[in-house]
Amino acid sequence: MKQHIYADNAATTKLDNDALTAMLPWLQDEYGNASQPYAFARKPKKALAHARNIIATCIGAEPDEIYFTSGGTESDNWAIKGLVEPNDKQVTITSEIEHHAILNTCNTLKDFGYQVAYIPVNNQGIVSSKALSDIITENTKLVSVMMVNNEIGTIEPIKELAAITHAHGALFHTDAVQAVGHIPIDVNDFGVDMLSASAHKFNGPKGIGFLYIKKGIQIHSFADGGAQEFRMRAGTENIASIVGMAVALQKNCDEMAETQKKLRVLEQKFFEIFKESKIGFIRNGSENHVPGNINISIRNANGEMLLHRLDLMGISISTGSACDSVNTKISHVIKAIGVPPEYAEGTIRISFGKENTVEDSAAVAKALVKILEG
Amino acid sequence: MKQHIYADNAATTKLDNDALTAMLPWLQDEYGNASQPYAFARKPKKALAHARNIIATCIGAEPDEIYFTSGGTESDNWAIKGLVEPNDKQVTITSEIEHHAILNTCNTLKDFGYQVAYIPVNNQGIVSSKALSDIITENTKLVSVMMVNNEIGTIEPIKELAAITHAHGALFHTDAVQAVGHIPIDVNDFGVDMLSASAHKFNGPKGIGFLYIKKGIQIHSFADGGAQEFRMRAGTENIASIVGMAVALQKNCDEMAETQKKLRVLEQKFFEIFKESKIGFIRNGSENHVPGNINISIRNANGEMLLHRLDLMGISISTGSACDSVNTKISHVIKAIGVPPEYAEGTIRISFGKENTVEDSAAVAKALVKILEG
Repeated sequence: MKQHIYADNAATTKLDNDALTAMLPWLQDEYGNASQPYAFARKPKKALAHARNIIATCIGAEPDEIYFTSGGTESDNWAIKGLVEPNDKQVTITSEIEHHAILNTCNTLKDFGYQVAYIPVNNQGIVSSKALSDIITENTKLVSVMMVNNEIGTIEPIKELAAITHAHGALFHTDAVQAVGHIPIDVNDFGVDMLSASAHKFNGPKGIGFLYIKKGIQIHSFADGGAQEFRMRAGTENIASIVGMAVALQKNCDEMAETQKKLRVLEQKFFEIFKESKIGFIRNGSENHVPGNINISIRNANGEMLLHRLDLMGISISTGSACDSVNTKISHVIKAIGVPPEYAEGTIRISFGKENTVEDSAAVAKALVKILEG
Repeated sequence: MKQHIYADNAATTKLDNDALTAMLPWLQDEYGNASQPYAFARKPKKALAHARNIIATCIGAEPDEIYFTSGGTESDNWAIKGLVEPNDKQVTITSEIEHHAILNTCNTLKDFGYQVAYIPVNNQGIVSSKALSDIITENTKLVSVMMVNNEIGTIEPIKELAAITHAHGALFHTDAVQAVGHIPIDVNDFGVDMLSASAHKFNGPKGIGFLYIKKGIQIHSFADGGAQEFRMRAGTENIASIVGMAVALQKNCDEMAETQKKLRVLEQKFFEIFKESKIGFIRNGSENHVPGNINISIRNANGEMLLHRLDLMGISISTGSACDSVNTKISHVIKAIGVPPEYAEGTIRISFGKENTVEDSAAVAKALVKILEG
């Protein structure tokens, strides 16, 4: 059997071995409910606090500003829906290229009669300060713009967007699911009020994430029930996954500069080989993008066919966002950045991660050239 | 160090070893995103379908009626909030003794201007058909009554309650978090429209659960985003935990009759010893209760003090529901069943599970007598 090359790290990542090792005691003998008052709950309670500290430190937050959730989707839903008040007339603003966890949550707001407005992007997928300034008003309650786009990897000017938002008295949320553990983040420097993250995008386990909520922000709980997470997110604490997330994040943050450098080399290697061919293509996104992301639109090609041909060669890539893979239509991101029709259908996303090698990158490029040039 | 006796299985249970073993491949090499279309996603996709089949079979449902969630709290929130329509004038009915995941979710409905009504219980904690009949009207949209009470273990007459509910054209939901894997359940025989469950209450992992939604029921999604879970519950599928939940549930269901018998013996043993003392107490709940639950109110005692004294002797029990353990006041359940004041403060919950032995039960009873008669 040929070796498998996994190049879809924006969809999910391999759980870090150290993270798994750290999880095991909590899946075995230390199963106590962290909210109980007896001795058997002491270790999980301590592990919970320790994980919260680690995660807070990684993004420049305070521990009591970190609320554990079941993942990025829940965090996004909470940040948006949690601010809604009965008969609210204020407006939620988001960008055209958000993940569906934001866009579909905003659709629900609209179904319930709340107003939503959308910021357009330029052809690099950048949400400019100018575009936000044009649309924001004193009636804006929340602006939610992603930190890194999941398809094209563009890094958004979060600090500038948050500053404009605050100047209009609104709150700023960022879906940082593709950013946390991949690019340096300081919530206070960036000036964000809320930030969503998902562990499995940074080599942590699936089914766990967090929402950073700046101290003093008034927000409703999303999952009501018990008194967990400072009475803001009910449900028995998932200690094993929380611990795994913290270990994975710490490790990714410690190794970030090195990983970034390596991933830039992988990107270079890919284009070095791919550009030797005569294949017409556009690289989507911005110069300022998350390391490892390669989103290209190939002239007169079919992205889905490319995905399946590469799959037969043992290479896993994506055509768009994972969550949208049941759809075969052109993604909302590719539409929003205005990729010409003769290129748009031939869009694929290759996303390298810390496990990939430069040989992987060369192999993907060669395989793609082979398929396209027959 | 003295041996630890864990007698708080209603708060959480030990993850079954077979369930953990089944989880490991999905935490190691088989980390593909189940929603992707390539070969590397095939095994997780298959595992997901297989787990859904197992779980459906255990409760008499169809696989496409099972929606995976992050646990009981999310399932309860979804069942209640998912039925709400803008400007809805219809009423949600629930009981006075529900878990806070239901009660606090209903409080949120009220904050948003929706109506909620509460069914009282008798002194055994039973929600009678008569009590529901007295309160239900043609304006009722949903009735939500738990299958097994988490504090006193009372099994509610779900089949009768569902029948009355349907006769009034309303939907019936049951929070079965304390029931699934512990008592036989057939959703069609019971006639429930929705049912919530949490894996860690039946020896599965924490952070995973499901909501059964009968085919044809119209409900909004709770977590909006990607197309997972038949487009009804967004978020990358947590395969490891889903697989662990299925293995744990299947095993508990296969061994249910045997476990129930054993737990009845443990209950008997406890009272055999405890009744030899001259301690005045009331056993709370109903004759028809979930096996292993012992909820007693001891005259002129303090439940919290008993918990801490037992803890020092290596025994973990509870004073009330786990989620309420930060509160020292008398629980809403103990209030609702009308335990006399001189007994109410001395309430403790001992909940044995399949890992416990008859020696554990004897040891708990003796320790309690020693403290009280000390």
